[in-house]
Amino acid sequence: MKIVVLKFGGTSVGTIEKIKNVVKIIRSYKKKKYRVIVVSSAMSGVTNSLINKSKQISENFSDEEYDVLVSSGEQAACSLIAGRLLHFGLKSRSWMAWQIPILTNGKHKNSRIIKINRSKIIKYLKSGGIPIISGFQGINKYLRITTIGRGGSDASAIMLAKFFQAEKCVIYTDVEGVYTTDPNKFDKAKKIKVISYEEMLEMASLGAKVMQPVSIQDARLNRIDIEVKSSFVNKTGTLITKRSNIKKNKVITGISSTQNDSKVTLVGVKDKPGVAASIFKPLSKNLINVDMVVQNISANGKETDLTFTVKSEELVKTKKILLSNRQIKFRRLLFNKGVSKISIIGVGMISTPGVTFRMFQTLANKKINIQVISTSEIKISVLIKEKDTSKALMALHKEFELD
Amino acid sequence: MKIVVLKFGGTSVGTIEKIKNVVKIIRSYKKKKYRVIVVSSAMSGVTNSLINKSKQISENFSDEEYDVLVSSGEQAACSLIAGRLLHFGLKSRSWMAWQIPILTNGKHKNSRIIKINRSKIIKYLKSGGIPIISGFQGINKYLRITTIGRGGSDASAIMLAKFFQAEKCVIYTDVEGVYTTDPNKFDKAKKIKVISYEEMLEMASLGAKVMQPVSIQDARLNRIDIEVKSSFVNKTGTLITKRSNIKKNKVITGISSTQNDSKVTLVGVKDKPGVAASIFKPLSKNLINVDMVVQNISANGKETDLTFTVKSEELVKTKKILLSNRQIKFRRLLFNKGVSKISIIGVGMISTPGVTFRMFQTLANKKINIQVISTSEIKISVLIKEKDTSKALMALHKEFELD
Repeated sequence: MKIVVLKFGGTSVGTIEKIKNVVKIIRSYKKKKYRVIVVSSAMSGVTNSLINKSKQISENFSDEEYDVLVSSGEQAACSLIAGRLLHFGLKSRSWMAWQIPILTNGKHKNSRIIKINRSKIIKYLKSGGIPIISGFQGINKYLRITTIGRGGSDASAIMLAKFFQAEKCVIYTDVEGVYTTDPNKFDKAKKIKVISYEEMLEMASLGAKVMQPVSIQDARLNRIDIEVKSSFVNKTGTLITKRSNIKKNKVITGISSTQNDSKVTLVGVKDKPGVAASIFKPLSKNLINVDMVVQNISANGKETDLTFTVKSEELVKTKKILLSNRQIKFRRLLFNKGVSKISIIGVGMISTPGVTFRMFQTLANKKINIQVISTSEIKISVLIKEKDTSKALMALHKEFELD
Repeated sequence: MKIVVLKFGGTSVGTIEKIKNVVKIIRSYKKKKYRVIVVSSAMSGVTNSLINKSKQISENFSDEEYDVLVSSGEQAACSLIAGRLLHFGLKSRSWMAWQIPILTNGKHKNSRIIKINRSKIIKYLKSGGIPIISGFQGINKYLRITTIGRGGSDASAIMLAKFFQAEKCVIYTDVEGVYTTDPNKFDKAKKIKVISYEEMLEMASLGAKVMQPVSIQDARLNRIDIEVKSSFVNKTGTLITKRSNIKKNKVITGISSTQNDSKVTLVGVKDKPGVAASIFKPLSKNLINVDMVVQNISANGKETDLTFTVKSEELVKTKKILLSNRQIKFRRLLFNKGVSKISIIGVGMISTPGVTFRMFQTLANKKINIQVISTSEIKISVLIKEKDTSKALMALHKEFELD
């Protein structure tokens, strides 16, 4: 069986007209002789409205009942999609997690799919039916409704693609795909035709909010091809696949940048085990999200400097924690508001020498000062002044032939 | 175990504030050492909004998916009620039909509960938990979600009371109980403290829209005491129970009246078997609701007159059918717009002679002409001019000491 999993996000099923449009898309796959498994989110706005109600009931609303509450949104959306397919005489029905079942473990609100029972759905697909499966939900061993924490309906789609050995998983959303850089910041941003899981993971965690990193990682582990595309325009999207499927690699696939970052430097911290932990523990406890962390080797073997970034709105809180905690020892504390992290991402850099140099030279040519550098196998990140962000983006986009 | 079933209708859980109030009511029963089973409808407006969506998807929306769609409303309401009880540290959880399970048979949209599995709920009650069970829904043998057609959540509540041998079933709604006559039409209408199933059935089918007749009949067959009361004011409601529980019967319990009726008389129809059927078959086929039917014995043994009432808006259609159908033979057709059926109801009339006379005399004293008479064991109905309705109501209300 040639199986495809089609996942529709909340905006794709946000109105009755959009649901009708989604059904047109489903029918087009059916015409191409695919066995189609559909996964749907709740209509956009529904989940938030339900969450809002739960907050009015209790500022500490039960996790178990939260899952029962919000999963009702997917139930409604799935029945409407199935109803529309039936309207055209196609065989279809909605499937709730408990009817399949989709088994999860872990805590409520944050469960993970561990098993999807294949038999009923396979039988249904063989009979020509189009199952409309509610995303985001599962049941646990106590037969209680659970919801998938991170990744939500995307995670459901990837796991369905895995358990039913789908040819691919198509994520329909409100953007046309993944771009070389944020198209809202730079109008020469281009849609990427194909990208590796690894690059996408770097892009995702750097702010390309197309998919949650956890779902990309699930797809990578299970070698599932993902196509991200828009449900509103009929255009090829972005294929996320394994590296070996990508014939012609560009050196750099994408460039990302951050906003509203602040740089914190602790000058003269002791260079001994446990120091970094003693600094980040109280920050983590206070839910301060620490990004780029850089620590250089110490020149004298006794002291070193530690730099990291936080969101600017958390700078005051960070300062307070660092200054009030007696466990944290340093000589001086430096703060810099208004910095931005620019990253270039691409598996191509592994086999191409000189990428780092080209990046630094490009920025130097534009008289942009690099404050901090951090690299991984497929990513180079630098910290620059925030006001230089767009200049840097443009120059790098051109240099690495992404225009 | 002293079990009580509390059922809350859509208006009783219509807003977050109202749900909070419902939880106060539930806690008051808990304090009285009851084991409480709660049944809830969807928040008012939710079901209609979902049905509206289904109509936009297809004018012929699938019955199976309709059940999936609308039952999501009860799911949300139940989780909110349970969440509020948990907020106060009480043990509670929502139960969907499939989790219990509540088994139904019959068609989708119009199923009937045939079995409720007791074990899980009994165990939960014994552990001190308050189950919040979604009304209106069940599952069938194919594990598909069904909804209870007539009676809806009331029917769920009555069946739960039956299977769990509850002491009583309290129907919380937006009215304070059952009245001697429609309080909107007559301001001296009094709330009835206690009424028999049989009287309530007559009241219900005559327009006291507090409960669906089918649910009252279920309660009667299973000898379940029902209390109908308001969730908004803390006042005693109306107890619906078996006759032997009612110590002091008034002769008449209530008076009802209809609006917008028209009288149709077929003069000179043949007095032989099958004639009435030949008249009512085409009307029923065309979904015309025929009410009060009266046929007198024929004076000459050959011909008789047949009178019945229909809603005035269906008079034109009725006329057309009667005149166009050649199987229906009569000498003359008479129509009367603007009639009203006044009925007095009470089990007391069985043992009290002269009730019929008192009714007729009362109307005669007010110079109200009686056009047609029809009686049952516990009900006397007469047809009068619609303009005399309120005069008749008032006079009878006084005569039978209901003021």
